[in-house]
Amino acid sequence: MALRTAAEYLAGLNDAREIYYRGERVRNVVGHPELGIAARHAAIDFEMAHNPIYRDLAVHRAGSDEYSAYYRVPRNVQDLLSRSKLIEAGTAEGATLVLLIKEIGTDALFALKRVLGRTGEAESIQRIENFYTHCRDHDLAMAVAQTDVKGDRGKRPSEQSDPDMYVRVVEKRADGIIVCGAKIHTSCTPYVDEVIVLPSRSMGPGDEAWSLAFAVPVATPGLRLYASDYLHGADDPFTRPISTKHKMVETLTVFDHVFVPWDRVFYVDRPGLAGATALTFVEFHRFTAVSYKLPLLDAIVGAGIAIAKANGIDRAGHVRDKLTWLGGYAETVRGLTELAALRCKVENGVAYPDVFTTNMAKWTFAREFHQAIETLQDLAGGLLVTGPGGMDWNSPEIRPVLEKYLPGAWAADRRMAVMNLISDLTTRLYGGYQAVLAVHAEGSIEAEKMAMFRAYDPTRSVNFAMRLAGLDTHTTAK
Amino acid sequence: MALRTAAEYLAGLNDAREIYYRGERVRNVVGHPELGIAARHAAIDFEMAHNPIYRDLAVHRAGSDEYSAYYRVPRNVQDLLSRSKLIEAGTAEGATLVLLIKEIGTDALFALKRVLGRTGEAESIQRIENFYTHCRDHDLAMAVAQTDVKGDRGKRPSEQSDPDMYVRVVEKRADGIIVCGAKIHTSCTPYVDEVIVLPSRSMGPGDEAWSLAFAVPVATPGLRLYASDYLHGADDPFTRPISTKHKMVETLTVFDHVFVPWDRVFYVDRPGLAGATALTFVEFHRFTAVSYKLPLLDAIVGAGIAIAKANGIDRAGHVRDKLTWLGGYAETVRGLTELAALRCKVENGVAYPDVFTTNMAKWTFAREFHQAIETLQDLAGGLLVTGPGGMDWNSPEIRPVLEKYLPGAWAADRRMAVMNLISDLTTRLYGGYQAVLAVHAEGSIEAEKMAMFRAYDPTRSVNFAMRLAGLDTHTTAK
Amino acid sequence: MALRTAAEYLAGLNDAREIYYRGERVRNVVGHPELGIAARHAAIDFEMAHNPIYRDLAVHRAGSDEYSAYYRVPRNVQDLLSRSKLIEAGTAEGATLVLLIKEIGTDALFALKRVLGRTGEAESIQRIENFYTHCRDHDLAMAVAQTDVKGDRGKRPSEQSDPDMYVRVVEKRADGIIVCGAKIHTSCTPYVDEVIVLPSRSMGPGDEAWSLAFAVPVATPGLRLYASDYLHGADDPFTRPISTKHKMVETLTVFDHVFVPWDRVFYVDRPGLAGATALTFVEFHRFTAVSYKLPLLDAIVGAGIAIAKANGIDRAGHVRDKLTWLGGYAETVRGLTELAALRCKVENGVAYPDVFTTNMAKWTFAREFHQAIETLQDLAGGLLVTGPGGMDWNSPEIRPVLEKYLPGAWAADRRMAVMNLISDLTTRLYGGYQAVLAVHAEGSIEAEKMAMFRAYDPTRSVNFAMRLAGLDTHTTAK
Amino acid sequence: MALRTAAEYLAGLNDAREIYYRGERVRNVVGHPELGIAARHAAIDFEMAHNPIYRDLAVHRAGSDEYSAYYRVPRNVQDLLSRSKLIEAGTAEGATLVLLIKEIGTDALFALKRVLGRTGEAESIQRIENFYTHCRDHDLAMAVAQTDVKGDRGKRPSEQSDPDMYVRVVEKRADGIIVCGAKIHTSCTPYVDEVIVLPSRSMGPGDEAWSLAFAVPVATPGLRLYASDYLHGADDPFTRPISTKHKMVETLTVFDHVFVPWDRVFYVDRPGLAGATALTFVEFHRFTAVSYKLPLLDAIVGAGIAIAKANGIDRAGHVRDKLTWLGGYAETVRGLTELAALRCKVENGVAYPDVFTTNMAKWTFAREFHQAIETLQDLAGGLLVTGPGGMDWNSPEIRPVLEKYLPGAWAADRRMAVMNLISDLTTRLYGGYQAVLAVHAEGSIEAEKMAMFRAYDPTRSVNFAMRLAGLDTHTTAK
Repeated sequence: MALRTAAEYLAGLNDAREIYYRGERVRNVVGHPELGIAARHAAIDFEMAHNPIYRDLAVHRAGSDEYSAYYRVPRNVQDLLSRSKLIEAGTAEGATLVLLIKEIGTDALFALKRVLGRTGEAESIQRIENFYTHCRDHDLAMAVAQTDVKGDRGKRPSEQSDPDMYVRVVEKRADGIIVCGAKIHTSCTPYVDEVIVLPSRSMGPGDEAWSLAFAVPVATPGLRLYASDYLHGADDPFTRPISTKHKMVETLTVFDHVFVPWDRVFYVDRPGLAGATALTFVEFHRFTAVSYKLPLLDAIVGAGIAIAKANGIDRAGHVRDKLTWLGGYAETVRGLTELAALRCKVENGVAYPDVFTTNMAKWTFAREFHQAIETLQDLAGGLLVTGPGGMDWNSPEIRPVLEKYLPGAWAADRRMAVMNLISDLTTRLYGGYQAVLAVHAEGSIEAEKMAMFRAYDPTRSVNFAMRLAGLDTHTTAK
Repeated sequence: MALRTAAEYLAGLNDAREIYYRGERVRNVVGHPELGIAARHAAIDFEMAHNPIYRDLAVHRAGSDEYSAYYRVPRNVQDLLSRSKLIEAGTAEGATLVLLIKEIGTDALFALKRVLGRTGEAESIQRIENFYTHCRDHDLAMAVAQTDVKGDRGKRPSEQSDPDMYVRVVEKRADGIIVCGAKIHTSCTPYVDEVIVLPSRSMGPGDEAWSLAFAVPVATPGLRLYASDYLHGADDPFTRPISTKHKMVETLTVFDHVFVPWDRVFYVDRPGLAGATALTFVEFHRFTAVSYKLPLLDAIVGAGIAIAKANGIDRAGHVRDKLTWLGGYAETVRGLTELAALRCKVENGVAYPDVFTTNMAKWTFAREFHQAIETLQDLAGGLLVTGPGGMDWNSPEIRPVLEKYLPGAWAADRRMAVMNLISDLTTRLYGGYQAVLAVHAEGSIEAEKMAMFRAYDPTRSVNFAMRLAGLDTHTTAK
Repeated sequence: MALRTAAEYLAGLNDAREIYYRGERVRNVVGHPELGIAARHAAIDFEMAHNPIYRDLAVHRAGSDEYSAYYRVPRNVQDLLSRSKLIEAGTAEGATLVLLIKEIGTDALFALKRVLGRTGEAESIQRIENFYTHCRDHDLAMAVAQTDVKGDRGKRPSEQSDPDMYVRVVEKRADGIIVCGAKIHTSCTPYVDEVIVLPSRSMGPGDEAWSLAFAVPVATPGLRLYASDYLHGADDPFTRPISTKHKMVETLTVFDHVFVPWDRVFYVDRPGLAGATALTFVEFHRFTAVSYKLPLLDAIVGAGIAIAKANGIDRAGHVRDKLTWLGGYAETVRGLTELAALRCKVENGVAYPDVFTTNMAKWTFAREFHQAIETLQDLAGGLLVTGPGGMDWNSPEIRPVLEKYLPGAWAADRRMAVMNLISDLTTRLYGGYQAVLAVHAEGSIEAEKMAMFRAYDPTRSVNFAMRLAGLDTHTTAK
Repeated sequence: MALRTAAEYLAGLNDAREIYYRGERVRNVVGHPELGIAARHAAIDFEMAHNPIYRDLAVHRAGSDEYSAYYRVPRNVQDLLSRSKLIEAGTAEGATLVLLIKEIGTDALFALKRVLGRTGEAESIQRIENFYTHCRDHDLAMAVAQTDVKGDRGKRPSEQSDPDMYVRVVEKRADGIIVCGAKIHTSCTPYVDEVIVLPSRSMGPGDEAWSLAFAVPVATPGLRLYASDYLHGADDPFTRPISTKHKMVETLTVFDHVFVPWDRVFYVDRPGLAGATALTFVEFHRFTAVSYKLPLLDAIVGAGIAIAKANGIDRAGHVRDKLTWLGGYAETVRGLTELAALRCKVENGVAYPDVFTTNMAKWTFAREFHQAIETLQDLAGGLLVTGPGGMDWNSPEIRPVLEKYLPGAWAADRRMAVMNLISDLTTRLYGGYQAVLAVHAEGSIEAEKMAMFRAYDPTRSVNFAMRLAGLDTHTTAK
């Protein structure tokens, strides 16, 4: 019964979920003028599974069985490469915006499988297996609520003055648990079926109540979604060719005494599992991230080349230098992403990309993204923020003036199409959204550096240096 | 009769000027819901002249005579420092957005005085002097239309397939000239009194018709302004504390057989003066630019410090490192700006800032601005693009949820106020506007580098190197 | 008869070769106090082939046949990976200094095979095949003389005032040709068996005489080697643990009417082949380069970690940040090198690494190398240039003073061993040598950028951008 | 009796001082083949005072009194600018190497005057005044021993396992004190008259014995100087035009029960003064540093321009770009240095440069120096490390070969003179010396960043940001 259609997916969102947007309760997500755009963007996931072009990539076949390839548990290099390609293809169909209604959820499921697998606790292992099978077989869309609102960054969960700064269990009952607290930056919550909740940090003694992982349907009583309107108002497809059609929505995700039955509780009161879950999750999720960044990078390089031609400056030395840098930047990220898969490790039969290489790819992407934006804006010109809008372009009186005065080496309509693509990608709401995501999504640059520091194996390099210095290598650690 | 009030200035905009915005003719600039914001932002210029706090800085007194200090012809270091301070103060009052209705116009007037002064041609000198006195004594607001639409960047004006790609004279009559063509990126045109038109590049033989400088009132027949709606729609003061109240508007400025009487024609048919005008203008205008960038830099540094405290991360080593970099970046620009004035040169009694130092300040500002943005976004967090909007904040039902869940080391209202300031400065339309201006306004980074290369005096350094190498210095050039 | 011993190799250098060093003719290379160090460094190549640890890597076996694995013509990914590993292992044995007596020569041979293979000219193909077999079967050491002295960089070979600025044919005889001119930067020439001479640039009509490739034994009459003494005088193994034992020598390689028999002339008078040879050669040679840079990078990272521990600062946040950067830098180069092999192409049965990826690896290495040096010096401290020398250390009177006063978290002897390793790697003659090689060897950074620009395939990225902009992709080029 | 001649200065070094170099005691510094070069380099200080070209800059006249201008206590902007110019001129005469036999000593004296002035303790104030007058009136040369050997970086002086890791008082007697311990990186010690000893860090309770400042003549019994031979062996003026004639020497400076009479003890047992002294000293010394870096920067820029011309590549776009960057880098440091003086503060009549601006200048210099080196090496070419040596150049047989084959756009002799200047500046021992000094001398880059963080006044920027955010500024600190 897997492989729903886009229509089935959208129909499934029509339930009692409690969403607030711009100060008001939203009763019908799909019918909402802005949230509906996001839901239909996400629905591309289901369209691809039925599109002959993508079937091989998007659908896993095992005998007569078929399910969404996002749910395929990676077993080897090839599975990870295919997963990366699928995420990349979905994002390209999404016009540089990731779909993210199965990517992140399966990242969480694979991580929980690995973490619980390490415990050898049969019941927990069965619960995550059952939940995974449920999601896969019903072709469900999932959000992952991980980042807690945190309160005072200098204090652990149990030290906060308000205990709800991290999501926690407030009551354990025979049939399940009651949870309170809030998560932030939860992507796609208003238009998925399930929310998987993971700890966002390592926990210590005393943090038991905050050490839990579980999943609930979005329409669970007490679960309230306060959706950000950051991308509100992008209504001009002339100047915003991407963002008028593609949108993602994040929520403040509040758990107000939400009941979770035991079969949805993957663990609770387990400080020892919290940090492991957080780390294992990002081992998958940063690989997802660098995979879904590739179309954005392609768009930046491609738009850079196109606007250089459209402006008639593509033969200038400094322009070639900038295009070369852009290409080198983008392809370094792509290369390291591929290599992270090629160097994968396997734990309990689950393949995961090499941690150092994945983080290196993400770090490279993140720390040079703003320079890429600057470079692209440099190539494009001031018209990015001083040009005409769609109402001008559509005016029969004004259009001829613009057509006369705005050509470069390309005619005005073609030049402005590329110019506006760049404006959408780099200067307006969507541009700001991508810029901040580059710095913060899937962990900040500092988090990536810490992950690299931890994952780096110094054996070869330190031993070599010690040998060159004429020192015993076995005493290095001294 | 100088020193108009803001009301007088705004009233003066009510004339036959021909403005188009979002596809429609605008009959009343001040009353327009969006252009009116820009006009009232510009009116701060006039308010300051009547504000006791700023009178000394904003008003020049010569005997019983008084006029706007923007019009004071700089004679020495002190005049340039005062001018810089005035521009900085105006921009700070404008909440990081320059006012620019006298700054750029006087930059152009001072440049024309210097360039025409070199010719020794009494009539031209008198014309510019008369026009300057007219503007000064009537306390007029001015735009400068310089950047031509350019068409094919590889061709000179006379080589373009459409001769209107650069503004040109199409007819010379007894009483004046007729001009055609279009300028782009003209700031503030809809709400100034006069438009000064300058060449945007050096001209050669054959480019006579495009080698002209003149000025016309905005309401001159045939002058049509197509205003960009880039900043359209910033209607939520919660998330956009600056840009809902402050706005600048650029136009595509079309000259459709505009008549210019001879006393407004500073020169025509003078290829030899075109490049000189363009270069001399930016000698003043880049100094204006670095002066008006200072409040933006202060806002970035100050917001960085504030959000680090609000988030409770201000004691982390990497945070201090980032704040130090931000401060060093901002203060290098400020220091070099001050130094450009201190090292000024004087031509024909007009003081102008040191060209190399001015460009070095601008280059420093421009090439590291995107890194500053990244750093500020890094300090702030993902909430920049996933946070609540004003309609949420104003909802009595939702506000308590936000107040509970969004505090850091500061309460949620104070933290969100700083967060939204940063979001406005770096991620939304206004953020994109400032980012592109950093790269392109007052000349691109490449243009600044070329100006630095030309202005660098290699004598000291090359002679020293030659002496160290044991070589004659007089043969260096060989 | 392949697989000579180191002693056989060194004995083979005793011939009539004409070498000048520090103003004097050198009659016995191996016995020379400085050139002998370089020759014995190169001899590591032969030692490895007889070392059981390296035999699998260093020796190619085909049936009963055995030859040095450098001569193995790469046919697939695995061959290229093995070649890279061999070059890396040789350089590690060389203590960060490449051996380069077969690496570069086989790069040249493989390139000539590909280039001549394209011509389909049986005689030329046979000549290169014969020469390759000769070198392989006699286990010869080879230098490649490519970079011409060039004279006026703005002129082509035929335009130079002195025609000898590029190596050229001055006479064609029945038995061979006579060549004149000089090459610069030729590595290892004094202690190899053969010199392969390639054009250093593309040639055009009129450049026929300069369009040739050939090979001669070093001891050919008229071939004169003027060896650089740049690394002269490294005589203190305490402060120079690497460079007192390992050395490479470059020559100005002068051809004064050198006779080359026809079977050693791969082509002559072929402007069309010159540029192709130069480009094809660097396709192999930059892959060699990034392979041999890896031990240097390992040494830098490893020494950075070790000195941080020795100094007792390894827990400081900024130190971890710097070590992370160093690791990320080094591993990006390593990763891209591996990927260049994994993405190889095959021409006429010869596998060559992906050109864009190879150049990206080299570009990454080169443009950030000086930052790595700065970082390492930062971690080490001023003692790099103010510390004691070996004569102090060896003085029974002084050593106790040094041992008392120079410990950090490690004892003085261990700390100084790492400190001096870093000093040798970054501040003294060898440090300068590696720094300049990073910028210039195997082509400058600008050359790498040009290669990247040419090798970048814009199809995917430009098509994607055009699609996002709503434009036909087939008209991009317009 | 001030204003000694160079001969008098050199004669004064002939005393019982205890110096070790390359494992041996040096009895005659001036006559030593290597240390003598350093002493004569330092003697340039005295030559300048008698050179009519420099008298106005180098000599202070007060009535009939004359003394070295280094000793002039700065009272205002002009004094600081003159001091900076004098240091710059001395370093230019020293061919990019600072003289440093009065610069650093007066930095220490001015700092002690300020710090002791704050205490109001008449006796201490008199002691420093007497010592200052003594040095000034006898025109003495001074070293400053500040950096302790430190041992375990994680422990305070009193916590070290060996108490001699920081210089300390071991006995207080009626006539003076006995001190033990060692300083490192002490510049010029072997060829100065006096050594001033300052604490290198802040001290706390328990650190009394290490909290002292004093001065002794170099020839004091128990004071032993172990000179580094890092710059040993620069004997070829062809390839090392600077470093064969100019040299500076650092010592490990050991105090083995050195007696200091009370009138040379500025304070002892004063933890409260230790940190203040260290900070106040660098307020002067970093200004000295940026002043003496200017000739090095000029040499880099000038050599860059010269070699671009010599190589014939000065018209290439990327070359102009690099030269522009070099000029911008150097002139930013120069500009900020000048500004640090212009913004000086005055304490007790002693003017000192603005702390933030001084550190900003030093930080700019230090963090981009390696990029400047890379850029210069890029412009020069591989010949920096593969070129001929002086013995080749002086050989009548070889010189003609080099002259024929090594010209570019300039003849070989002129091109090689510039090439070798760059090689000396960037690749050999002297290049390494300058590179490490850039990172570590006068405090590391991290120390400069900490100084900037502390010196930054956030009032203006934070208040502005708070106002923009609509928040009270007086609650910022909350």
